[in-house]
Amino acid sequence: MNTIFSSIIEESKKYTSNGNVASYIPELSKANPNDLGIYAVTLDGNEYFAGDYDKKFTLQSISKIITLMLAIMDNGEQKVFSYVGAEPTGDSFNSIASLEVKSLHKPYNPMINAGAILTSSLILGNSVEEKIKRILDFTRKLADNNDIQINESTYLSEKETGDRNRALAYFMKSYNSMEGDVDEILDVYFSHCSMEATCKDMARIGAVLANDGVLPWNRKRIVSKEICRITKTIMVTCGLYDASGEFAIHIGIPAKSGVGGGILAAVPKKMGIGVYGPSLDAKGNSVAGIHVLKQLSEKLDLNIF
Amino acid sequence: MNTIFSSIIEESKKYTSNGNVASYIPELSKANPNDLGIYAVTLDGNEYFAGDYDKKFTLQSISKIITLMLAIMDNGEQKVFSYVGAEPTGDSFNSIASLEVKSLHKPYNPMINAGAILTSSLILGNSVEEKIKRILDFTRKLADNNDIQINESTYLSEKETGDRNRALAYFMKSYNSMEGDVDEILDVYFSHCSMEATCKDMARIGAVLANDGVLPWNRKRIVSKEICRITKTIMVTCGLYDASGEFAIHIGIPAKSGVGGGILAAVPKKMGIGVYGPSLDAKGNSVAGIHVLKQLSEKLDLNIF
Amino acid sequence: MNTIFSSIIEESKKYTSNGNVASYIPELSKANPNDLGIYAVTLDGNEYFAGDYDKKFTLQSISKIITLMLAIMDNGEQKVFSYVGAEPTGDSFNSIASLEVKSLHKPYNPMINAGAILTSSLILGNSVEEKIKRILDFTRKLADNNDIQINESTYLSEKETGDRNRALAYFMKSYNSMEGDVDEILDVYFSHCSMEATCKDMARIGAVLANDGVLPWNRKRIVSKEICRITKTIMVTCGLYDASGEFAIHIGIPAKSGVGGGILAAVPKKMGIGVYGPSLDAKGNSVAGIHVLKQLSEKLDLNIF
Amino acid sequence: MNTIFSSIIEESKKYTSNGNVASYIPELSKANPNDLGIYAVTLDGNEYFAGDYDKKFTLQSISKIITLMLAIMDNGEQKVFSYVGAEPTGDSFNSIASLEVKSLHKPYNPMINAGAILTSSLILGNSVEEKIKRILDFTRKLADNNDIQINESTYLSEKETGDRNRALAYFMKSYNSMEGDVDEILDVYFSHCSMEATCKDMARIGAVLANDGVLPWNRKRIVSKEICRITKTIMVTCGLYDASGEFAIHIGIPAKSGVGGGILAAVPKKMGIGVYGPSLDAKGNSVAGIHVLKQLSEKLDLNIF
Repeated sequence: MNTIFSSIIEESKKYTSNGNVASYIPELSKANPNDLGIYAVTLDGNEYFAGDYDKKFTLQSISKIITLMLAIMDNGEQKVFSYVGAEPTGDSFNSIASLEVKSLHKPYNPMINAGAILTSSLILGNSVEEKIKRILDFTRKLADNNDIQINESTYLSEKETGDRNRALAYFMKSYNSMEGDVDEILDVYFSHCSMEATCKDMARIGAVLANDGVLPWNRKRIVSKEICRITKTIMVTCGLYDASGEFAIHIGIPAKSGVGGGILAAVPKKMGIGVYGPSLDAKGNSVAGIHVLKQLSEKLDLNIF
Repeated sequence: MNTIFSSIIEESKKYTSNGNVASYIPELSKANPNDLGIYAVTLDGNEYFAGDYDKKFTLQSISKIITLMLAIMDNGEQKVFSYVGAEPTGDSFNSIASLEVKSLHKPYNPMINAGAILTSSLILGNSVEEKIKRILDFTRKLADNNDIQINESTYLSEKETGDRNRALAYFMKSYNSMEGDVDEILDVYFSHCSMEATCKDMARIGAVLANDGVLPWNRKRIVSKEICRITKTIMVTCGLYDASGEFAIHIGIPAKSGVGGGILAAVPKKMGIGVYGPSLDAKGNSVAGIHVLKQLSEKLDLNIF
Repeated sequence: MNTIFSSIIEESKKYTSNGNVASYIPELSKANPNDLGIYAVTLDGNEYFAGDYDKKFTLQSISKIITLMLAIMDNGEQKVFSYVGAEPTGDSFNSIASLEVKSLHKPYNPMINAGAILTSSLILGNSVEEKIKRILDFTRKLADNNDIQINESTYLSEKETGDRNRALAYFMKSYNSMEGDVDEILDVYFSHCSMEATCKDMARIGAVLANDGVLPWNRKRIVSKEICRITKTIMVTCGLYDASGEFAIHIGIPAKSGVGGGILAAVPKKMGIGVYGPSLDAKGNSVAGIHVLKQLSEKLDLNIF
Repeated sequence: MNTIFSSIIEESKKYTSNGNVASYIPELSKANPNDLGIYAVTLDGNEYFAGDYDKKFTLQSISKIITLMLAIMDNGEQKVFSYVGAEPTGDSFNSIASLEVKSLHKPYNPMINAGAILTSSLILGNSVEEKIKRILDFTRKLADNNDIQINESTYLSEKETGDRNRALAYFMKSYNSMEGDVDEILDVYFSHCSMEATCKDMARIGAVLANDGVLPWNRKRIVSKEICRITKTIMVTCGLYDASGEFAIHIGIPAKSGVGGGILAAVPKKMGIGVYGPSLDAKGNSVAGIHVLKQLSEKLDLNIF
C-alpha cells in the first residue's frame, strides 16, 4: 500500500509546476512549490504515507469545517442554519455581491468566507482567547495531537491584509445578519485559519469524519453522526471553492481544501486522508494534491457515487 | 417492507396540504394535490410500492438527467462540459443574470434550464423528430417500458408559455455559447420535459443509475459507469433546485425532482426509487415526496455520507 | 461661422484613428473610418456645415429618441413610463441581468435596448408595416426630408444577428413586462434602427427638440414641449451609453449617439446639431464626433450647466 | 414673489403626510414631519422665503457635493475621477454589489455612498481634525455663514450605526481602490454628513453654483466655473438617489437631496434654492420638498431642458 502511495506521489510531482503558491501574505509565499505529501488513516487501524507528509502548513479554509462542527455542537443545527445557508453557490469564496442581492442577506453556506465568519461568531466562550482556545482544543482532539498551534506570524499577516473579510463582516453586521463585535469575530476567524498542522493531522480528522464522529483510536465519540454527515455533505457540495462540482464528479470524495496547500478528505466508512502540496491552481486548490486524490480514488475505488 | 412503505406514505400524506400543484400550464394544475406514491426497485431484484405509485405525471426537470446522459453518450464528456459547467449555483433554475455576469457565458450546470437547453442542443439526430425519438427510446430502455409517451397537450402548453426559455436560448445563441436553431432545440427540450411516466418508471431508471449503468433485469450495460457517476454526482449537488444542499444534508441520496411532482432517486449499489406527489413547496419540489424520502433514508439507512 | 466649423473638423480628424467602425454587421463595417462631418441648424434660421456632412449613415440607437417621442404621443407619458423607467443605469446598453434582478422587471430607461424594444412595442398601427411607416413619416417630418428611407440590407443584417435583442424581448414577454408578438416588435425595432440619414437630417431633428417641438422652418408644432423636455433630459442622462455622465460633465449638451457613427444634439433655445464619424470608441460613440462637440460647446458656450 | 412662495408652501404642505422622517438614527427621527420651508437667493440680489425656512437640519447626502468640489480643488479633476466615476447608476445609494461586479472596483459616481467616502479620502489635511475643519470652513464660505456647525450627537449616531459604510470602505481598501485609514476616512465622512444648516444656507450654496463659482454677495470667486459645471451636471444625473431621472424629467433643475429632509438646488444663471421637509418618500427624498420644487420650476420656468 505504501508503494501505491509512493508511486502516486512520484507520478503527481510533475503537476506541482502547473500552479503557484499563494502570495497574498509572506508566510504562504515561503512554501516550497515542489512539496507534495500524503497520509491516510484507515478505520481498520492502518496508516499509510508518502512524500512530504510531515511538512507543516496552515489550515486556512480547511479550518472552516472544524468551526462549522463546533458551531453546531455549541448552538444546535437549527440555530446555525438560521444564520447561514447550506446551499452551494457558483460565486467565488469571497464574493459580497450575493449577500446584497439575496433577500435574506444570509451567506449561502459555511464554506465561503462570509459563512465561515458567521460560524466563527457563533463559537461559545467568554472572551476571544477562550473561543480560540476552544477551537484549538477541539482540533487537537480531532487530530489526536496536542502540538497543533496557531502560527503567529500568519495570523498577524492575515489580520493585516484582511480588509475584504472586514467588508464581509461589517456588511453582515449592517443587516443584522451577524451578532457580536467585528474585530473580535475576525480575530477568532484569522486565528483558526492560521492553525498549523501536517498531512497526518488532516488524515486523522478525516478519519473521525469517516467514522461518523467516533475517534477510531479509542472508540470515543467526539461529534455526533448527524453533524459529521452534514459536514461531509457540505464538503462534497462546497469543499473545493469553484471547482467543487468538478472534483465531486471526477473524484467523488468529501474533501476540503485551503490556500495553504492542504486538502482534508473523508471517505465514509473507510478512511481519512491528508494531502499537502502548496502549488495552487487558479481556483485556489492544490494542483498536484487534486491529482493525488484522483489517482487514489481510482486505484482504491473510493468514489462514493 | 411494503408495510414500511405504506406507513411512510400514510404518515407523509398530511404534508401534501403544505404546498400547491404547479399552475403555469393547465395540464399541471389538473393534478390531485393529495396524491402521493412510491415505488422502489432494488438491485437484488425486489420491488416495493405504496400509495399512488401508478399515477402518470410528466417528467419535467427529471428529464434533464436523461438528456445529460444521452448528450454525453453522443458527444463525449469533454465536449459536453466544454459547453456547460458542472458547478452548482445558488441562482434559481431559470436565472439569466448569471449567464451574463460570468465571463464565459456558459450555463453553470446541466440541471438549470439554460444548461438543459444546451444538452438538448447536443443530442444527435438528422431532424427534430429523430432527436426526440432518440431521447424517448433511451428513456423507454432505461425504464424498461415501451409505453412511455410524450404528453401532447403538456408539450403544446410548454411551448406556448416558454418565453423565458426562449430568452435563455437566444441569449446563449447571441454569445455563440450554443449552436443550432433555437426553435428546433426548444422543441426537443419541451418534448422531453413532457414525457409521461409513473413512479415505477422512475424507480427503474434510478435502479440503472444505482447499478452503474447496467440494466438490473437483464445485466446488459446501457450507460457507462463514468456517465452514471457524473449524473449521480450532479443529482446530489444540483438535483433539487435551490434546496439541493439541504436535501443532501438531511437525506443524502442522489435525486432529481420535477415540477410535475415526481422525484427520481438512485441509491448507489442499492436501489432506484420513484416518488410522486404533485403538491410542491416554494422551491418547486414535491413537499410530501421529500418527506417520504427523508423517512425512507432514515429507516433504511440510505444516506451515502 | 463655417470657418469655425471647418477648423474644428480639421483639428478633430486625427481622432478618427483612435477608434474602429462597428463590425457586427457587414453594412456598418463598410463605412470609411476617416469620415467626419457636422451640420448645425440654428433657431434663428442659419445653417452651418463642414466635412462629410452629406454622407448617409443608419441611425441605429439615435432612432430610440424618435420612437420614444412617438410612443408618448401615441400613449401618453403616464402609460409609457408605466412600462419603462426614466432612470439612468450604469449597466451596458444590452444588459439583461438588471431586468432580472430588479423586482419590477422593467427596463431602466428607453435608451437601452430593452427600453427601446418596449417603446417600439407601444407604437400604434394595425400592422407591422403601418407602425414602421408611422415612425418613418414622423422622422421625415422632424427632419423636413421625405427622402429618408430604411436601408434594407442593414435591416436584414440586424434581423439576422439580432439574437441578443430577441433574448431581451422574450425575457420581457416572460414577465409580462411587454405585450405583443416578439417577431413583429423586433421588426419594428430593427427597421427604425436602419433608417438612413445625414448630418443635416440630424441637425433638423435636433433643432425641433431645441425649439420645444415647433418646426423652426414653418412654426408648426409637431411635438409637445413636455415631450421634448423629457426627451432632452433623457438624452443628457442616458444618451451616450456608458459615457453619458462624462459627456454631460465635459460637454453639457443633450445628445444621442448611434453605432452607425452619428450623434444628434439639441442645444435648448439655440440649435440642433448633427455629427457623423463612424470610427467608434470602446463605448460605441463616435470618437472624433465627441471631440467635435466638445470643441463646439467650448467655442460657442453651449454647455447648459 | 414671497406670495408665490407662501402659496406653494401652503399648497404643498398636504404632501408631508405621504412620507416618513428618517428613523435609522434618533436625531433624525426627532424631526417634525409637518415642517416645510423654502428659501431662494437670486443672482440679481433678491431673497425670497416661506414656511419653516429657518429650521436647522443635518446635510446628510447634500454634503457630498461640497466634498466633491473640495476634493477636486485639492487634487484636480483628473485625479479625482481616476478614483471615482462620473456615470449615473441604477443601483441604490449604498449598493456594494456593483463595486464587486465592475472590473475596476471603482464607485460609479461621487453621489453614492462609496463614491462620497472616496472623495472624503481625498480631502487634504494633516489630521482628521484638519480635514473636517477644511470642509466646514469651505461650507461656511459657500453659505456665507460662520455659525454652521457639526451636530455632535448626529455624528456619534452615524458613527455607531455606520456598519454598511464601513463595509463599503473596507471593500474599496481590499481592492486598493481607496487609500488611507478606514476609521479616519469615515470620521471625515460622518462629520460632513452631520453638518447642520438651514434653507437659507442651502440657497446660498446653490446660488454660488448657479453663479459658476463666484460668491454673488461680494463677486469673489471661490470655486472654478469648470468644477461648478461638473457638480451641477452630477446633481442632474445623480442628485436624487434612484429618482434622479424622474426629477430631471419633470423638474429639470440641478439638485441634491439628503435624508435629513433638505434639498439644495442651483438654477444656472438664475438662483440658488434651499428646501426643507423631513418627511421622506420611499427613495429617501423630501416628499413635499419635491412638490415645492416642481411647482416653482413650472411657475418660474426654471427647467433647463
